[in-house]
Amino acid sequence: MRLIEYEDASPEVLAVYEEIRRVRKTDYINNFWKALANDPETLRRTWEASNQVMAPGTLDAITKELIYLAVSITNQCAYCTASHTGSARNKGVTDKMLGELLAVVGMANQTNALAAGYRVEIDAKFRE
Amino acid sequence: MRLIEYEDASPEVLAVYEEIRRVRKTDYINNFWKALANDPETLRRTWEASNQVMAPGTLDAITKELIYLAVSITNQCAYCTASHTGSARNKGVTDKMLGELLAVVGMANQTNALAAGYRVEIDAKFRE
Amino acid sequence: MRLIEYEDASPEVLAVYEEIRRVRKTDYINNFWKALANDPETLRRTWEASNQVMAPGTLDAITKELIYLAVSITNQCAYCTASHTGSARNKGVTDKMLGELLAVVGMANQTNALAAGYRVEIDAKFRE
Amino acid sequence: MRLIEYEDASPEVLAVYEEIRRVRKTDYINNFWKALANDPETLRRTWEASNQVMAPGTLDAITKELIYLAVSITNQCAYCTASHTGSARNKGVTDKMLGELLAVVGMANQTNALAAGYRVEIDAKFRE
Amino acid sequence: MRLIEYEDASPEVLAVYEEIRRVRKTDYINNFWKALANDPETLRRTWEASNQVMAPGTLDAITKELIYLAVSITNQCAYCTASHTGSARNKGVTDKMLGELLAVVGMANQTNALAAGYRVEIDAKFRE
Amino acid sequence: MRLIEYEDASPEVLAVYEEIRRVRKTDYINNFWKALANDPETLRRTWEASNQVMAPGTLDAITKELIYLAVSITNQCAYCTASHTGSARNKGVTDKMLGELLAVVGMANQTNALAAGYRVEIDAKFRE
Repeated sequence: MRLIEYEDASPEVLAVYEEIRRVRKTDYINNFWKALANDPETLRRTWEASNQVMAPGTLDAITKELIYLAVSITNQCAYCTASHTGSARNKGVTDKMLGELLAVVGMANQTNALAAGYRVEIDAKFRE
Repeated sequence: MRLIEYEDASPEVLAVYEEIRRVRKTDYINNFWKALANDPETLRRTWEASNQVMAPGTLDAITKELIYLAVSITNQCAYCTASHTGSARNKGVTDKMLGELLAVVGMANQTNALAAGYRVEIDAKFRE
Repeated sequence: MRLIEYEDASPEVLAVYEEIRRVRKTDYINNFWKALANDPETLRRTWEASNQVMAPGTLDAITKELIYLAVSITNQCAYCTASHTGSARNKGVTDKMLGELLAVVGMANQTNALAAGYRVEIDAKFRE
Repeated sequence: MRLIEYEDASPEVLAVYEEIRRVRKTDYINNFWKALANDPETLRRTWEASNQVMAPGTLDAITKELIYLAVSITNQCAYCTASHTGSARNKGVTDKMLGELLAVVGMANQTNALAAGYRVEIDAKFRE
Repeated sequence: MRLIEYEDASPEVLAVYEEIRRVRKTDYINNFWKALANDPETLRRTWEASNQVMAPGTLDAITKELIYLAVSITNQCAYCTASHTGSARNKGVTDKMLGELLAVVGMANQTNALAAGYRVEIDAKFRE
Repeated sequence: MRLIEYEDASPEVLAVYEEIRRVRKTDYINNFWKALANDPETLRRTWEASNQVMAPGTLDAITKELIYLAVSITNQCAYCTASHTGSARNKGVTDKMLGELLAVVGMANQTNALAAGYRVEIDAKFRE
């Protein structure tokens, strides 16, 4: 699928691009959105859902970025790992914090496999 | 693999069980550790690595728990999801926080698939 | 592993290459088969199984391609996503159809994570 | 997380439950929605997105169910596999169709691994 | 899907069941095959492919079982982990060997995540 | 994250690099370790754990490499697949052995999906 550039965007795509620029306070639009623009409905739905989900709540914006990254790394998604490492850094995540994140992500992937391999039964107290 | 109970533990397993009880401030030992005890070397290595990795650093203990959970959910690891939901709650994670965590985890799993499906090229600025 | 070109193929590999050309009605042989040719037994077994499985039955050829793509995207398999997007298009799958496919694949990956994270118990009526 | 029953639902949750009943033409509400109801925002967002994405378009409702199932199986999501096998059957998917779906899903998971293991380079013609 | 018992099997399913009994030297037929019997073509194809692939070659039968288990654990496939732990033990795999297998599987899952998270570029010498 | 070269390494990183060179009997340090060096604690912990886990025990070094590769392929980890294919070859793994490994890995990924899709219940005898 080709990337839909600003110049070639339909009015409905353009409307989302404008929102992205306004909310993100930058003219740059990530390739991800330019690819989704091939399906304007998915572009709008994903942009709006992403905005709702990533907005600071009881978890702050940085914590949400770290969680996002943890999932993307676990899924071996090169694009999302690259782009969200970038946005994490933009939000103030340091190399030291990234290092700690990666250590936890590595550990969890290891223990997930160990739990599966040893076929560990869930403790009664965790079953509710 | 059977679970190695306290009563049946070898001295090297017992030594780890005692550390777990002391560090975690509880007599209860999770089934996960009782399963790993079938391989005392893995029990000790995993316990020590887990302690090192999960200790508060530039990321606090709750953030690390949330990252751990995000990985476990993404991997569909029922045991780790159950046990770390429990330990997250013990550390003060509320239902509201868990809800926000799950919303981000769901969103990231969705966009990871979209990025793969649209075969989005990594933006030059994220490639360093 | 190197790709086994037509000129360098052993008789048993050549026999599969000829079948591929005949069935696919093209001289072009995908890199996938040229790689599998390093293990002629796997080349033949996979080619024959693939032919049997992908043949139109109660599901038509396009539906099978879409299912194949859904799996490949979920697994973050760049090669299979690229090659089966190509073969889907050859069979008449339009950009609009691909967009709808990707929307469903994204949604399913999201709800799979939500079901795991909320640890939803299977409804009695779905358990048979 | 507990399931939020109809009787205990807040007005915003109730509103979604009513939509589900109306759209699905049944009083039964799946455990999945009752679990999401712990986070009303995620309940509404997921329900609306799901409705938009699963609606018949250039792909019909059955094809979308099959794609959904293919993802859920690949992710080893027991809940989604069970519930969407149920809804697929409700929409007229036969045992024969399910058998063909599973054959394709199995094959794609196999070839995804083979492509990764042989580290097959993407053919120039699939790179666009 | 229901399990197809010996008594209810069609002639083509029965033929595979007889082969399984003869090759495996046991009257017992695993639930896996009884489930696949819902699609006789997939039953035969999978049984024959499995026989071909798992037969001792340059890798012996035990090594192949361990590889099979490593994949099944990584995929969080409870059925395959349980059944192949059983068949591994039948072939002489000891608790000590299983413990070492699981340690390697855990380690690889960890380093896979670390490599993805650090976005490590493949060394020139590994690129051929 | 940048790679930490020998010349730029802190004393604690240097100490691990020296161990790697001594144990591996080569001056070459893989990019993986140079990336982990961004977090010296993770570098040391992972190096030591890897050494402990990959050391020949009741399973020999080659079997452990094959298990490692099986996991890395299943996870679609391009870096680990490339580097461990290299180290497997260095330890004497032939093309024939790699071909058999890949056939088993492909088969297991297929049957994992089939077991999930058919929702096969674990046989009583595999449940302990």
